[in-house]
Amino acid sequence: MSPRKHSLIESKGSLNMEASSMKKYAAEAFGTFVLTLFGCGSAAVAGATLGTLGIAMAFGLSIVAMAFVIGNVSGCHINPAVSFGLFLDKRLSGKDLVGYWVAQFVGGIVAAAVLALVISMCDLGGVAATGLGCDGYGAASAVGISLVGALIVEVILTCIFVLSVLGSTADERTAPYAGIIIGLTLAFVHIMGIPLTGTSVNPARSFGPALMMAVSGDASALSQVWVFIAAPLAGAALAALIWMGLKKRK
Amino acid sequence: MSPRKHSLIESKGSLNMEASSMKKYAAEAFGTFVLTLFGCGSAAVAGATLGTLGIAMAFGLSIVAMAFVIGNVSGCHINPAVSFGLFLDKRLSGKDLVGYWVAQFVGGIVAAAVLALVISMCDLGGVAATGLGCDGYGAASAVGISLVGALIVEVILTCIFVLSVLGSTADERTAPYAGIIIGLTLAFVHIMGIPLTGTSVNPARSFGPALMMAVSGDASALSQVWVFIAAPLAGAALAALIWMGLKKRK
Amino acid sequence: MSPRKHSLIESKGSLNMEASSMKKYAAEAFGTFVLTLFGCGSAAVAGATLGTLGIAMAFGLSIVAMAFVIGNVSGCHINPAVSFGLFLDKRLSGKDLVGYWVAQFVGGIVAAAVLALVISMCDLGGVAATGLGCDGYGAASAVGISLVGALIVEVILTCIFVLSVLGSTADERTAPYAGIIIGLTLAFVHIMGIPLTGTSVNPARSFGPALMMAVSGDASALSQVWVFIAAPLAGAALAALIWMGLKKRK
Amino acid sequence: MSPRKHSLIESKGSLNMEASSMKKYAAEAFGTFVLTLFGCGSAAVAGATLGTLGIAMAFGLSIVAMAFVIGNVSGCHINPAVSFGLFLDKRLSGKDLVGYWVAQFVGGIVAAAVLALVISMCDLGGVAATGLGCDGYGAASAVGISLVGALIVEVILTCIFVLSVLGSTADERTAPYAGIIIGLTLAFVHIMGIPLTGTSVNPARSFGPALMMAVSGDASALSQVWVFIAAPLAGAALAALIWMGLKKRK
Repeated sequence: MSPRKHSLIESKGSLNMEASSMKKYAAEAFGTFVLTLFGCGSAAVAGATLGTLGIAMAFGLSIVAMAFVIGNVSGCHINPAVSFGLFLDKRLSGKDLVGYWVAQFVGGIVAAAVLALVISMCDLGGVAATGLGCDGYGAASAVGISLVGALIVEVILTCIFVLSVLGSTADERTAPYAGIIIGLTLAFVHIMGIPLTGTSVNPARSFGPALMMAVSGDASALSQVWVFIAAPLAGAALAALIWMGLKKRK
Repeated sequence: MSPRKHSLIESKGSLNMEASSMKKYAAEAFGTFVLTLFGCGSAAVAGATLGTLGIAMAFGLSIVAMAFVIGNVSGCHINPAVSFGLFLDKRLSGKDLVGYWVAQFVGGIVAAAVLALVISMCDLGGVAATGLGCDGYGAASAVGISLVGALIVEVILTCIFVLSVLGSTADERTAPYAGIIIGLTLAFVHIMGIPLTGTSVNPARSFGPALMMAVSGDASALSQVWVFIAAPLAGAALAALIWMGLKKRK
Repeated sequence: MSPRKHSLIESKGSLNMEASSMKKYAAEAFGTFVLTLFGCGSAAVAGATLGTLGIAMAFGLSIVAMAFVIGNVSGCHINPAVSFGLFLDKRLSGKDLVGYWVAQFVGGIVAAAVLALVISMCDLGGVAATGLGCDGYGAASAVGISLVGALIVEVILTCIFVLSVLGSTADERTAPYAGIIIGLTLAFVHIMGIPLTGTSVNPARSFGPALMMAVSGDASALSQVWVFIAAPLAGAALAALIWMGLKKRK
Repeated sequence: MSPRKHSLIESKGSLNMEASSMKKYAAEAFGTFVLTLFGCGSAAVAGATLGTLGIAMAFGLSIVAMAFVIGNVSGCHINPAVSFGLFLDKRLSGKDLVGYWVAQFVGGIVAAAVLALVISMCDLGGVAATGLGCDGYGAASAVGISLVGALIVEVILTCIFVLSVLGSTADERTAPYAGIIIGLTLAFVHIMGIPLTGTSVNPARSFGPALMMAVSGDASALSQVWVFIAAPLAGAALAALIWMGLKKRK
């Protein structure tokens, strides 16, 4: 999001390239750490007094917080589905896609570990009681959505979200403030999505907490997490397809 | 909303014209689908834990989500009343007005069908229990507003909303971010309107859910839906009239 | 707020001048009507399910809704205290100050009358039960604030609000979007102010509902309304004084 | 935040310099007064009906309210941790750092005194009952976070917040609206932080209310306040370190 300078960076020599890639990956890991810690943390810690809109804003504003910090370095994807959509739209190389994905999953896992640590220092009944902000279907969904329902919902939510990324960063007039547009759109998809699946639209945000719950002895979220990896990636592919149709000149 | 290029597009040859029209109409159908699914979906699925402000934000942020995706294609009206106001302000041709209207109603109907499908996959008591986010008066209004009251309220709400569209897109300094201004204004009119009528200001958003409720055996919303078609169109006409007075040079 | 062209308009001939003044006053009456109807209406109609933040957003977003509609015509003050502050900062003539004030009070009164009409068409127990969104102290304040407390609070709230108007419209880089900044600031002062006094910061918004309550037989709000006229004007004067100090070059 | 002209101002003669410094410090005292009064005031006065998101918005929007008023004078830090981060990034002189800090603490103390005065004029049970919006750990935290937990949380929250200040003000395209970005980020860190520690990220905002509670006979907050001075400063230092790594060209 916000201005990216991939082409500029990529024209530099290969040694600088390496250094630059490492920095981009570190930025993505850091940004995904912030999104996951604050988004899932708000759901886990403040749930009842915060409400659905508050949790939606916590996820959405993580983009506003990070876009103007790491946007000029990595583009602030902080979401494997976003990187996948930009890769399909030929704005990210295959090498960087892999690097971004690894970094984003690392960020999500570290965030969940830090969240578990913080919760262990509170009187919240521990990680098991708070659920760490995991996504889920069936008994793990507030409205008991079915597996097929969860797949449909996550594809739609992610498609809309990734479209807003593709659209707002493509126009040079709106690109400087794309972080605000994208952040508000992330809040938007959470509003309807939270009672249904918890809202993933971001495999790294779902995997970290699910893994940490499994480490704590509850593998139920981890057993469902493939849904929140596969569906967001499918939603991003659908978004790239729709965007290809929209941006054609006629 | 946001930059439209109607005049540019219209100067192209008639064959391209056809292709371009189809794309515009598809964009409007898609955008109205998103507004209706997420707005009505939030009201139907998350109502109690979300609150009035949350539902208002779901409707409002649908404009933010879509304006930067389809704004350059169709102008992102995603509302028959908005298209009517822009037609009266001579920014949309009569042919496109019809095309936009058909597309918007299709989008609203498909959204309601998808919402009904998703709800059927949850433990929410089905479409009948959730109400699908329909608008209404009398017993269907949270505060039991009368028919005449509903007509007055919807004319006022839509007039204010369409004025913000006409105003924010007319000034080249604010046009790039009109999607944010218009989205916040849509949230604004929902805040007061939700307890009164549910807030239509958009015939396509009201007709889709009402039709789908009738398909499910409850025709009460469909029997009232003329109010939420007629009043928004009247409100848009009033807005165009006021705008004509405001924009005159002296 | 947003771009004003007073100097341009004032350089025109006196006949055009008259026409232009009438339009400016009409714009101010209309804008104040919208602020009062939607702000007070949200408080009166949706109170409990909306919460303090929701009511604050209803007032704040009225500026966003109107600034891009009437900003180019009248500057969108829609508040006698704002006009007073701009008059003291020499951005509004004495003649226009009087014209704006009359227009704004007319707008506030008409809004309260329309709100009373709408409420009479609902099952809300009538105007007496809803209170019409009046401001108050003592028994009329949610926390029973004293008269002196109400005066202090309203001076501070209005001072901060009018400062944001003076500041955000003075810089040509932020002026195009001043409506968003000012609207968010109006929401801001309402968040703390609603439980204390209801938050006036706007004599026209307080007078209309108080008058309409008196017409309905309850003169208690009208007997307190001088507080919500005097204190906001004093707050605006304080803001103009502080702004004078801030904008000096050294 | 928003455009600062330190270098310009500093090139002026030493007499002007003095006058200018005094004005900058006065601006910082005033801005910190507004942040503390409205943020802590919202928590103390409106807590239950406002909710976590509302309190977070009160703190966040204080930046939006003030940035366009005092931004051109002092940069609108209104937070000792922000000034420390900008000092470490070499955008603030050591002399101004001390001047800003003194001014900010004065602003926070005066705000707490005014808040205590206002509360004494309401039926809220007095300062002791409202807590004046103090931060805390252990029994003073809504979730009983430990001392170490509070230190960790405040370092992280402040680091993210100060990074958004460093990032959004460094790019000339986003600098004019940095106040909006920074304000939304301050709301963001409050959402998760309020149930944990109350969220300081600002030593002046924590010290004023803690001191005023002690004056009223309850020294518990003052005995913990070192946490909310030390941890935010450490978080700002961490932010400056990360920012140094991010802004390097390769």
